[in-house]
Formats: sequence, C-alpha cells, structure tokens
Amino acid sequence: MYKTGWIVNGPNLNMLGFRSKEHYGSETYSQLMDSLINYGKSLNLELQAFQSNHEGEIIDKLHTLVKEKCDFIILNMGALSHYSIAIYDALEMVKVPMIEVHLSNIYAREEFRKTSLFTKLCLGQITGFKERSYYLAIDYLAQLEEK
Amino acid sequence: MYKTGWIVNGPNLNMLGFRSKEHYGSETYSQLMDSLINYGKSLNLELQAFQSNHEGEIIDKLHTLVKEKCDFIILNMGALSHYSIAIYDALEMVKVPMIEVHLSNIYAREEFRKTSLFTKLCLGQITGFKERSYYLAIDYLAQLEEK
Amino acid sequence: MYKTGWIVNGPNLNMLGFRSKEHYGSETYSQLMDSLINYGKSLNLELQAFQSNHEGEIIDKLHTLVKEKCDFIILNMGALSHYSIAIYDALEMVKVPMIEVHLSNIYAREEFRKTSLFTKLCLGQITGFKERSYYLAIDYLAQLEEK
Amino acid sequence: MYKTGWIVNGPNLNMLGFRSKEHYGSETYSQLMDSLINYGKSLNLELQAFQSNHEGEIIDKLHTLVKEKCDFIILNMGALSHYSIAIYDALEMVKVPMIEVHLSNIYAREEFRKTSLFTKLCLGQITGFKERSYYLAIDYLAQLEEK
Amino acid sequence: MYKTGWIVNGPNLNMLGFRSKEHYGSETYSQLMDSLINYGKSLNLELQAFQSNHEGEIIDKLHTLVKEKCDFIILNMGALSHYSIAIYDALEMVKVPMIEVHLSNIYAREEFRKTSLFTKLCLGQITGFKERSYYLAIDYLAQLEEK
Amino acid sequence: MYKTGWIVNGPNLNMLGFRSKEHYGSETYSQLMDSLINYGKSLNLELQAFQSNHEGEIIDKLHTLVKEKCDFIILNMGALSHYSIAIYDALEMVKVPMIEVHLSNIYAREEFRKTSLFTKLCLGQITGFKERSYYLAIDYLAQLEEK
Amino acid sequence: MYKTGWIVNGPNLNMLGFRSKEHYGSETYSQLMDSLINYGKSLNLELQAFQSNHEGEIIDKLHTLVKEKCDFIILNMGALSHYSIAIYDALEMVKVPMIEVHLSNIYAREEFRKTSLFTKLCLGQITGFKERSYYLAIDYLAQLEEK
Amino acid sequence: MYKTGWIVNGPNLNMLGFRSKEHYGSETYSQLMDSLINYGKSLNLELQAFQSNHEGEIIDKLHTLVKEKCDFIILNMGALSHYSIAIYDALEMVKVPMIEVHLSNIYAREEFRKTSLFTKLCLGQITGFKERSYYLAIDYLAQLEEK
Amino acid sequence: MYKTGWIVNGPNLNMLGFRSKEHYGSETYSQLMDSLINYGKSLNLELQAFQSNHEGEIIDKLHTLVKEKCDFIILNMGALSHYSIAIYDALEMVKVPMIEVHLSNIYAREEFRKTSLFTKLCLGQITGFKERSYYLAIDYLAQLEEK
Amino acid sequence: MYKTGWIVNGPNLNMLGFRSKEHYGSETYSQLMDSLINYGKSLNLELQAFQSNHEGEIIDKLHTLVKEKCDFIILNMGALSHYSIAIYDALEMVKVPMIEVHLSNIYAREEFRKTSLFTKLCLGQITGFKERSYYLAIDYLAQLEEK
Amino acid sequence: MYKTGWIVNGPNLNMLGFRSKEHYGSETYSQLMDSLINYGKSLNLELQAFQSNHEGEIIDKLHTLVKEKCDFIILNMGALSHYSIAIYDALEMVKVPMIEVHLSNIYAREEFRKTSLFTKLCLGQITGFKERSYYLAIDYLAQLEEK
Amino acid sequence: MYKTGWIVNGPNLNMLGFRSKEHYGSETYSQLMDSLINYGKSLNLELQAFQSNHEGEIIDKLHTLVKEKCDFIILNMGALSHYSIAIYDALEMVKVPMIEVHLSNIYAREEFRKTSLFTKLCLGQITGFKERSYYLAIDYLAQLEEK
Repeated sequence: MYKTGWIVNGPNLNMLGFRSKEHYGSETYSQLMDSLINYGKSLNLELQAFQSNHEGEIIDKLHTLVKEKCDFIILNMGALSHYSIAIYDALEMVKVPMIEVHLSNIYAREEFRKTSLFTKLCLGQITGFKERSYYLAIDYLAQLEEK
Repeated sequence: MYKTGWIVNGPNLNMLGFRSKEHYGSETYSQLMDSLINYGKSLNLELQAFQSNHEGEIIDKLHTLVKEKCDFIILNMGALSHYSIAIYDALEMVKVPMIEVHLSNIYAREEFRKTSLFTKLCLGQITGFKERSYYLAIDYLAQLEEK
Repeated sequence: MYKTGWIVNGPNLNMLGFRSKEHYGSETYSQLMDSLINYGKSLNLELQAFQSNHEGEIIDKLHTLVKEKCDFIILNMGALSHYSIAIYDALEMVKVPMIEVHLSNIYAREEFRKTSLFTKLCLGQITGFKERSYYLAIDYLAQLEEK
Repeated sequence: MYKTGWIVNGPNLNMLGFRSKEHYGSETYSQLMDSLINYGKSLNLELQAFQSNHEGEIIDKLHTLVKEKCDFIILNMGALSHYSIAIYDALEMVKVPMIEVHLSNIYAREEFRKTSLFTKLCLGQITGFKERSYYLAIDYLAQLEEK
Repeated sequence: MYKTGWIVNGPNLNMLGFRSKEHYGSETYSQLMDSLINYGKSLNLELQAFQSNHEGEIIDKLHTLVKEKCDFIILNMGALSHYSIAIYDALEMVKVPMIEVHLSNIYAREEFRKTSLFTKLCLGQITGFKERSYYLAIDYLAQLEEK
Repeated sequence: MYKTGWIVNGPNLNMLGFRSKEHYGSETYSQLMDSLINYGKSLNLELQAFQSNHEGEIIDKLHTLVKEKCDFIILNMGALSHYSIAIYDALEMVKVPMIEVHLSNIYAREEFRKTSLFTKLCLGQITGFKERSYYLAIDYLAQLEEK
Repeated sequence: MYKTGWIVNGPNLNMLGFRSKEHYGSETYSQLMDSLINYGKSLNLELQAFQSNHEGEIIDKLHTLVKEKCDFIILNMGALSHYSIAIYDALEMVKVPMIEVHLSNIYAREEFRKTSLFTKLCLGQITGFKERSYYLAIDYLAQLEEK
Repeated sequence: MYKTGWIVNGPNLNMLGFRSKEHYGSETYSQLMDSLINYGKSLNLELQAFQSNHEGEIIDKLHTLVKEKCDFIILNMGALSHYSIAIYDALEMVKVPMIEVHLSNIYAREEFRKTSLFTKLCLGQITGFKERSYYLAIDYLAQLEEK
Repeated sequence: MYKTGWIVNGPNLNMLGFRSKEHYGSETYSQLMDSLINYGKSLNLELQAFQSNHEGEIIDKLHTLVKEKCDFIILNMGALSHYSIAIYDALEMVKVPMIEVHLSNIYAREEFRKTSLFTKLCLGQITGFKERSYYLAIDYLAQLEEK
Repeated sequence: MYKTGWIVNGPNLNMLGFRSKEHYGSETYSQLMDSLINYGKSLNLELQAFQSNHEGEIIDKLHTLVKEKCDFIILNMGALSHYSIAIYDALEMVKVPMIEVHLSNIYAREEFRKTSLFTKLCLGQITGFKERSYYLAIDYLAQLEEK
Repeated sequence: MYKTGWIVNGPNLNMLGFRSKEHYGSETYSQLMDSLINYGKSLNLELQAFQSNHEGEIIDKLHTLVKEKCDFIILNMGALSHYSIAIYDALEMVKVPMIEVHLSNIYAREEFRKTSLFTKLCLGQITGFKERSYYLAIDYLAQLEEK
Repeated sequence: MYKTGWIVNGPNLNMLGFRSKEHYGSETYSQLMDSLINYGKSLNLELQAFQSNHEGEIIDKLHTLVKEKCDFIILNMGALSHYSIAIYDALEMVKVPMIEVHLSNIYAREEFRKTSLFTKLCLGQITGFKERSYYLAIDYLAQLEEK
C-alpha cells in the first residue's frame, strides 16, 4: 500500500538552476521535484511537493499537514533553517517522521549556516549531496517500517 | 464610554488546541478570541482580534493601527517575539499602550525563548498563565485611566 | 471557602514611595499591602504579607511556608531575583503555585535586571504594571481551580 | 543610452513620514520614490521602485530581477538587513552591482542594528543621510562606467 | 589528644529531609549533625556544627573562628558557594585546613552549580555522596598529621 | 567494474549492541559490517571495514589509505569527530571522496556533539538514521559517477 | 557650619588587622574609624561609621540614611561591591553625594574584583591607598561646595 | 558664499597607488586630493586636505579644527577607525558635521575592520566606492543647508 | 562476601614520584596501587589496578569492564578528564557505580583543569587529598549497600 | 627636603576647557597644571607637568623618567589607558610609585572606558573628581613616607 | 663534548612529502630526520628522532626522557599541540630545555591552530620556516651555554 | 653578492638593558644592533636597524621600504604587535619576505601578549630566545634562496 508524504521546500529553492552549481547542482526546481515524485512512485511512495519563499506560507502549509495528516515530511527549509523559530513551532506540532535535507554541505560554508534549528525535531539530516540528498531521504522512508 | 483595542496574534496561535496543552491550554483560537471579546465587552472595552502567520501581514496590520488609531494593543507575537526586528520597527511607531502576553512560561522552556525584543516597547508583560494571560491584560486595560 | 496565600517581598520594597515613581508607582509599602489584603478578601483569598531586606530572613520565611503550607505564594524578590541561588533552593522546596511579580518593566532597564532566576519555578510572571502587577496576580489566583 | 535599475525597499519604509523624523526624514514614501525616479531621469537612469513588508515578496521580486535583468539595484532592506539570511541567498544570485543605503545612521542606534548581512554582497554602503542616502547612490550609479 | 573542628553549613541545609532525597539524602539536619559529632568523637575529633541561612551570620561565625582558632573546618556553603565573594573574603583569613563538601553531585545539575568560589581556598572537595561526603571529610581529617 | 572503499569507524563503535539502542540501534558491530559489505557487493562496491578505539591507529590506517588509494571512504569517527585535530590533518591528505555518517542524531543530544571537525572535508553528512546512515552512504557512492 | 556624613562599611572590614596587610594595611577597624572621625572633625565634618557583614543590615541602614538625610556618604562595600544588586537599588534612592573607596587596589587582584556595581552611582572612586583611601575621600568632601 | 571644510586622512592613505587596487583604487594620494579640492570648488566648497600616519598628529590637527572652526569635516581615519579611542575623544569635541568615508568595503574584508568607533559621532558613513566615496561626501555637503 | 572493583588510571599517573609533590604526593604508582589493594582487602573489597597513557587502551579496558562486570570503578583519568569525549562514551556504557578521584585540587590550578567531562556520570568526586583521595573513595565503596 | 615628581598627561588633556564640562571640569590645561604645581610646592613637592597627544612621545618621556629618576609619577593617560600596551611596557620599567587619576568617572560612561590597562601597575586610582582627582593624588604623595 | 638531544614529532609528521608542500615543505620524514641528525653532528650535538601518531606513545616516550635524561628536546607535536593536556602534563615533568617548532605558519591557517598548549613550557617557539624551523632550533641549542 | 635588509624595532626596544632581564636579555639596544649588523656581514647580508616608539614613524619607515625596496625585513614591533592595525596595513604593502621575532616568550606572559596581528603576513615567527631570536632570523635569511 502507498505511503504518502510531502516535500516542503523553503526560500530560493524555486531558483535551482540559477544558483551556484557547486553548492546546489544543475537541475531546475520543477525538474527535480518531478523526478523525485517519479522516484517515489517507483518505491510505492506518493509524494507531493511544496515550495514557498514566504515563512508565513510555509507555516500555513505545515498547519494543513498537521490537520490532514500524511505519513512523513521531507524538509529543506533553506536559509530559514537558521533563524525561523516560527517554523520551529509549526514543526513541533507535526507528529509524523521528518527528515531534513540540504543540497549543499552547510558545514563547509559561512558560519551562519552551521546551525539548523530544525534538526533536533527530525529523525536525522542528510546534507551535502546536491539533488541526491532528497533521493537518499526517499530511500530511507521507502524502507521505514510503520510503527 | 467604550475604549477600543486590538489583540494582535502572531504565528501558530491559530493552531491553539493542536499545540501542547501543557504550554498553551486547550481552547481553540476562535473560542478564545470570542471569549476575550465578550469579556472585554463586559468591561466596556471594544476588542478586535487579528492573527497571522506572516510577519509581513502583521506589519501591514500594525501600520493600519498606527494610522487609524485605537486605545491600546495586546500583543502575542509568538515565536516572532524572539527575532523579528521588522515588527519591532513597526511597534515603535505605535503610540498607544501595549501589553505583551504569552500563554506559556517562556522562561521555563528553550534558551531561545527567553528574550523578547518587544517587551521594552510595552507597558509590561504577562506570561505563563495560558489563556488567562490575555484576561489579565484586559483586566489591566479596563481599569487604566486615560491620561 | 477561603484560600490562603502569602505575598513575599524582597529588599527595598519597604521603601515604596521613596523609589523612582516612574518604575515603582507612588503608594507606600504598607498602603499597598493593606490594599492587596483587602482586595484578596473581596475575592475570598486570605493574604498575608512579608517583607525583608535580608536574604537569610526570606529563606527562613520560605522554610516556614514549606512546613506550614499555604495555598499559593506571590513573589516579588526585587534585586535578589537576579542572583540569589540560595533563595532559588528554598523556592524549589515549595510545592504550592507561585507567581512572580515585578512593579517595574525589568526588561526595559539595566542589562542585569533582564534575567530572573525564579521564573522557571513559578506558574508565570507579571511585570511592569506597577502596583497592578500584584492585583493581576491575585485576580489569577482567585479564579484558579484547585487540582 | 538609459541604464535601468530598481530601488528595492524593505519593511516599514512605506511608513516614511510616520516614523521618527530624526532618523528617517520627513518625506512620505511615495514622494520620495517619485522624486528619486525624476532625479534618476535627469541623469539618464531609468529607475523603478518596489517596497514590501513581506520577506517573501522581496525574495520573489529579487528572483524576477535575477531573471529579467536590470543594470543595478539600490537596496534598503530596513530591519531585514539584520537577520534575513533568506534574502541574503536571493541577493547572492543577483549579478548586477548593488548598493546598500540606510536612511538613519544604523551605527548610532541599538546594538542589533550594527550588522547588515548584505553589505558584503554590495559595492558599498551609504548610511545616515536620510533621503540623501538614496540620491548619493544614484549619483554614484550615474557615473559608473559599464564594464 | 583531641583535635577540634567546626562544620559550617550554609543556607537550606537546615531543611534536610524536606529537600529532594535524590540529591540530598533523607536524614534531617540535626540527626545528621549529631551523628557526625559522634562519629568524630570515635576518631578523637571534637566537632561542633553551625548552620545559617544568612550570609552575614556565616561571615560573623567565620570571624570568630579566625580569632578563637580551631584545628580545621568542614564547609558546606550550599548555594552561597556559587556567588558569595563576601564569604570568600572571610575564608581567606582562616589559616586552618578546610575541606569543602557537597551532598549532591553539583556537576550533574544546573549550569550555575558547577563553579564553587571556595574550592581553591580548601585542601580539596568531596561532592556527591550525600551524607557520606561529610563522613569522608572527617575520615580524612582524623588521619591528617599536624604539621 | 568494482569500485573499492573503506568504512573507517572510531571509538566505541565496536560496542554496538551494548550502547543505548535509542541512539545506536541494536545490531552488533560485526553483524552490521558484514551486512554493509554484502550490501556493497550487491551494488558493485567492494567494501572493507576498519575500527579502532585508538586515535593513533586510525591515523595510521588513514595514512595507509593515502598511500594505497581506494575509491572512497565512509567515516564514522564517533566521539573523535568533536575534537581530534590530528585525524583532521590525516583526512586532509586523503584525496578520494569521503562521507561522514553518524548513527545517532548528534544535533539532538549533548551540546558538545553538535560540531564535527570533519564534515567540511567530506562531500556531506548523513546523520541520525541508525544503521541506515551507512546504507544511504553506500547508495550514494554506488551511483556516483567517476570524474 | 558642620557637614554630616556616614562611612558605610561592608563585610569583613571589621576584621582589619586580621586581613592581608599587603592589601588592607595594619590598623584595626575601630582604630581606623576613630581616627577618621577625628580627622573629619578637624575639617568641620561630623562623621559616623557603620559596618555590617549582613547585606540586609546595610540595606536597612541605607534606608535610614535616605529618610534621615545626611550630607554625603563614603562607601566601602567590600566584596558586596561585586554582586549585590540589592544594595545597588538601595543606593539609587540616596540623593546625597557618595564616594566609593577601596583599601586594596581591586584592579590588581582576582578577576572577580575588577567590577564594582556601585561606582556609577557615586561621584567617583578612590582605590588602592589602604587607609588613606578614606582620608582622601574626606579631604574631597571637606572642600566640596554645597550646590 | 563658500563653505569651508577639511578632509582628514589617517595612516597609509598617503600610499594610495601602492596599495591593493581592488580595495583602494588607482589614483595617488595627491592626485586624489587635488581632484577633490577642484571638485569642491565647482560646488562652492573650499576644501583642504590633511594626512598623517601619526595618531598624535591627527589629534593635534583635530584640536586646531576645534579652535579655528570650519564648516564640516570628511574623515577617513583608515585603520585607526577600528581602535583609536584617543581620536574618538578628539572628535567628540568637534561640533561641525562630519562624514566618515572608506575607500574599500570594510564590511567585506577582515573581521577586525567591521567596526568603526567613529561612525556614531558622524552624520553617516559612505563606504566601498573607492575614490567616489569622497566625491559622494562632497556632493552631500554641497547641498546641505546650514542650520 | 567480597565486592570486586577496578581502579582505572589515566596518563602520567604511572609517573607518580616524578611529578610535583605539592600536587601529587610522593609515593610511586606501584607503591600506591599495592597499598590501595591491601587497604581494599582489609575492607573486603577485591581491587585491581589499571593504568595507561593511551586513550584507546583505556577505552578497550572499559569495554572489558562493561562485558565482564565488576561491582564498582574508581576513576582517575588525569588530563583526559578534561577533553576525552571518547572515554565519556565508553563510561556511559558502564552500569556500576563510579567515583572520580583526583590527587591534586584541580580547582586551584590552571583554568583548563576546572572542568571534568566525567563527573556527571559518577556518583561523585573526591579531589585534592593526594593519595588519600583514593582511600576515601574506597572507604565510601566499602560501606555502600548493594541495591 | 623636596620630593620631585611628574604629572604625565595623555591625549586631549591639553584641550581641557574645550571638553564636556560635566565630565572634565572647566579649567584650562595650563591653569590646572600651574595650580597643581603651586599646590605641590605648598606641600614640599616639586612637580613638573608633561602632556602629549602622541603615544610615542609619552613613551619617550617615560623612558627619560626611567633614566633620570624622580620620586613619583601621577598618570592621566586619557583614552590611551584603554588600549596602549606600548605605554604599559614603558610603565613596567618605572620603579617609583605611580598613581592613576581620571577627571571623569570612567565607570559611568561608555563600555570601552571601563578598563584601564595601567591601574595594576600603580599604587591605586582616583577617578571621577574632575580637577580634584589630581589634588587628592598630590595629597597622598605629600604624606607618603619614603621606604 | 657532545650534548645529546631528542626530536619528538607528533601525528602525521611521518607523512611529510604527502602533505601540502605549501605548508610542510617537500622532504620526506626520514630524509629530514637524517639530515637533521647529520647537521647536529656537525655542531657537536648527538640527536635522536622519535615520531608517533599515538598520543599515548608520545607520553611513554617523554616519560623515558624524564627518567633517562638528555640535554634538550625539540618538539613538533603537530595537531596535538592544540588539545593534548595529557602531553602537557608529561612535558611538565621534563626538566631540560625544550623548543617548540612548527613547519607551517600556524598563525596563518585555521583558527584552531592558533593556540599551542605547550609553548609556555618551552624556551620559545620557531614557526613557519618549513624544514628550516628544526635547523634553527638546532643552531640555537648548539650555542646554548650549559648553566 | 650582498642581500640587503632592515631590522625594524617597535616601542621600548631602545630600552633593552633597562627592561626585565628574564624576558629581554641584558645587552643594550645599540650593542645588540651593532652585533647583529656585524653578524649579518659575516653571512653576506647588509643589515640596517631602525627603532621608534612612535607608531606613525614606523609606518613612515615601512612606506620608505615599500618604495625603496630591500630584500627582507626582520620585525620586532613590541607591544604594537598586539593592536596596531595601522602597521598591519603598512606591512600588507611590503612585498619582500618578513620574519617576526620576539625576545621574550610572549606565550608565557600576560593574556594580551598571546596574539600578534602581524604573524600571518610574515614567513614565520621566532619567539622567546632573547637576543638569539634575531640571530636565528638572520641565519634563516642568509640561507634563503632568491626566487
């Protein structure tokens, strides 16, 4: 049976393809999301993608996910990972497993990227593998037993 | 004669009822606001409530209150209390008395909740009494003499 | 049936009326306490007041309250709030609900007033409303259901 | 031939005229923008102005500027200058010259205003000359040779 | 021949039995002191006990001990260990060997308990063994050769 | 054609099965390594495993890998991740791709576990998925094109 | 006409003569105070001396001085200078000129002696001249014009 | 009527042309000053230039300007901006408007260049536009109304 | 019946007798261990001693103790107490009571000796009594009831 | 017999009379020095005054005083007190008694004025009494016995 | 007569030739040591070289040198210089002159390389001259008079 | 053929012989410089020496060296090493090899001597060998191949 999940993406991720290829890879955002959704299907996961540059819209979306339920969430909050306590509060309400991914190796860049507020609310973090960070998260979720 | 005021609520407060009861009590947001408005009426205060998960919408709202005037504001900016300098700037323009309330005891939780940027712009702060924090603010405002 | 409680006041509060009116209001200490006790009576609370400039006497008093029990405590430890770990230890033994009040808005003054050691041991804090801080605490306690 | 550029303004700048005249001068936002656009014209610069109180809308706007290109950007991000890493990421994608301006002398105010995340992505900063900060930026851009 | 010594106890130690058994054991203060005095006797040490919740009284007592001399002091200053520079100054005048004891493991509790001002003025510290911390100090002193 | 790689494990990893299951999962070290090697084989990767509790032995091993070459390294340095600059220096000499894995979510534990010296020398980090952290690293390496 | 003043001494100053002569000189407390009072007389100043090892008694005394008035106060709060915010609050109520003196050069000793909370409430500080620190303060006060 | 002003330059500015062109542009010091003086003339400003590598000579010069008066000062104190409290004290005596300029973008270089002691004593700061930083300051001063 | 325990000693303790007598006493390592083992025997404790200068060997030893069990451990990890998180992890697996001892008063020496990572994993700490620190630990363990 | 001494003054003290009267009093530098020299004479002290705005000249002067000897030095290094390690090194060579004076209460002003590097090399410090700070230093030196 | 000494090298120095030539030069470890030993001979110094990647082996070696004595030690502890307090303790027992050398300029690299624990136990430090750092240390020792 | 170089000495070095022999050796400045110049000659180096107590003069001198060129510079900036960013800027313009020397072991003295701003601009640093620090720098330069 299908498990359902959301990929929730934060600011600037819609601009993949315009950002530094060294850090973010070369696919566009919609290419990447399509490709992830297909990959999910092949593993019996029904994925949906969301992206916003607005902290408030992300919070609104997370509230929906709290109410409507899904089986897991893959998070890439981009720069908001480093300071949005408001999203932290929204994530605290989520009861399904979450995985944090980052395209770039945030530990090899500016000082202010080295701390993510959200990791401790997630199962774990996959960081630095460009687009593959998402695929690995999906791999993990596909094999995860329901408790 | 009636005094008029606004209750301005920040992100995630619309989710009361879904959040940790230990910190936030068990009423829903609209139950609580209705009940506060009624309570205000009984004390000759005409209250209106506003909530948004968007920093920008809160700033827009505060700008309106700067222009249209009211007699006081009760603030619960939620997580934005800890980092939104943009809201700080908007509050600086407000010339009516403001009271900051928090449902949870922010001093008994994570380190990053222990500082509110906004308290020094307010008359004072009431924190930790769940829904009653708002009621106490209303009590205070009801007995406050106009200067 | 009456609930009984103590208002425990720390150093310099006996000098109300001699201190900066901007921060502390204009009633004398005994006027204020009398008035609070009367107000309590009107709400079926039997209040008693204690004040000392001596950390040790406050600790002694709190020990008495640990042994003799009362239903709640309202604390205004003044400057000791910021450094007296000895009082912290005494408060840890108290098992009844406590509320911390401050007359002045401690978050709008010197840096060293911004942290109270005791808040995390209390239900919550009411700060900045001059004499009304106490009244609001009483209001809260009057409506508090026994568990 | 005309060079084209945008003036991108952050939160609360729409309220010029309502804010402290000492820090922000006395023109309204639309007066100031009109006047800057006219001034630009006189120097063969075609300027357009944008303002938003929403971090997300500013990011959206910057994305448009990344795609549609213009010759330069004048930034006044207001309070977001001090904490919006999300806007920092959007600015990193911009390849045209940028100048940061501030109306008030941010180094003579609160501690939290003393650091701008964005300056290092810009040619330079002009700060403290009220409305004239913008004019000076325009002067600079008008004489800037294309490389 | 008998050696004479004092056990000087700081705030809240009179409340042993009322405090957290996990940290402080279950004997009352007077039971413990009696038992220590008897134990001392069995090892040819003549012990006396002092306790106060008042920093000033402890200083007064230490002054007496400076003047009247004894052969050693066992200190448990409780919370004052972490901030009373005034007691530090009094201890500096004491010329006999001192041992610092703590009932609880102060290194496994709140951050503010991890530093004792007084240890560097003592021979050493015995911490975490509940009542036994005192007995071990006595054991040590009983076998200590006079120099 | 087979690609060859090493899994280099630091102190205490030999004790898997004896450590907290919540953080580290329940397989023993040799079960896990056998299983990883088999998994690698199924993906055309020839894996070998090394473990030591001795910083010096790990450095010796890394020196061998610098000289003998392999195609990649998966690192789990355990607690040495947080302070061994000597291993950092050894890793700097390694020119093949490295991936850092952690069984536990190091960002949800003690403060001193939140910084790894080595991440910035690696492609990325996979942390918090217990045994699956290794499998995901292998998945990634299996699909990695040689440059 | 005589000007009247108090010398208010904090903890351990009663033990002058027992403390390190290098830092504190060799007179006893009562010798020093007598001698200061006589010296004051010779300059038309009527001095009185107070000393306590109890923070609370010092606060009580300062309250008396607030109420009964005198023309100036010479303060040597000893170790309490470094942490007693409660005394700071009491001193804030004093409206007559105050001078802070220290016998020892507090800037040439332990780190924790380098900051006095009280200096900013005083005209100035005289520190390091042993007994002469007091005499210099008296000299200054004797020539001070009344405003 | 002419307004008179000084351009006061600190250490190493005499070496323009020898320093990194990327940060400091390519004109020599005397070319730049001549050109600024001419530019000033064209705007009815009578400018004079001063440069010294000696903190003391700069202070002497500023004292002269305090006594002889001029209408404004343009400051580029170079590295002394970051640590010379002695110049800060001299600038505090200056009562005419001052503008701080920097050739390089000091916010995009070493950490120790990010703070200027002097900005808060000036109207504002213009930084990062190489030689043009001075011209913009002159533009500003030329249009500044006398108060 | 005999209880069995280990004394696990860290780097440089084998050099007792060569180190500063003021801090470490004058017995050699083997004299001290023999004497402790005999003392243990007299109290029905069967002690064994281990020492290594190698962090890795200590970890190996602790792993053995995790597997083979004993009734308690006395730890003196020497300098490794201050930085070896790898040993911390090994100690976390140990389920028997542990006591930390130090020969010297680590709180009266260099700043970097003032924090031990391990204390919070132990019952308590005995520090500063030279060889007697071990004897006191044995005394404590001898009287400790099995739970 | 006369004792000889120097008053060594640092930057900006030549401008007394031009600086803030609140902090620095109203006499000019030469009035003050003349008056101090006369006052010295009346107490059998032969004083000479030196002032420079140049750190280097002050160092040169101190070197002369090291070689030619005098009986004491009164120091007011102004702003250099807060950062000139070079002067610190020169003062270390001086073997006669030194007293540090400040006209203003440096502890009641900007944060960066609160630490003087030099106090620990002096007998003591007299600060905050405007011109009288010097007179008190002279008083002290006049009565100081030669050792 | 010959003086005898040891060169004690820490982790990764055996890999000279494999490490960054910019920081570490291009000779291999054994070439360098042979060459240093020959150079020593030519200056009447009998040198021996030791290297280990194991903190514990280095401590063991230093213990041997404490017991067997030699005339001096040249230290290059590599990365252990920055954190090994255990080696610090071993070095404290060494009574012969020690010189610390570093091949690379540790002050021009990562932040964590800027502090060496060991320098204060040595005569001095020679850093940044690649292989020549050792030769200079030998030159110094060759001319050092025995005391 | 001769190589030419300068030894540039900062404040207080002219006083060698008057300063602490323990830190600075016993030769006078001119003896030392003469002797270094002769030593240079014997190695085919033509050395010249410069010393000043004035930061500004040192900067002037360095500017000359930028313009007139020499083959290398040996720097001992004394206390200015710790804070003179102005000299840092002057040194940045120097393109010949520089070596930093210190007579005393700056890492074994006051905290504020532990950081030199200039080392990262030099080949390396030789510190702690009194006069020999200079000789070793000369030795190094004598054997340095021109690139």
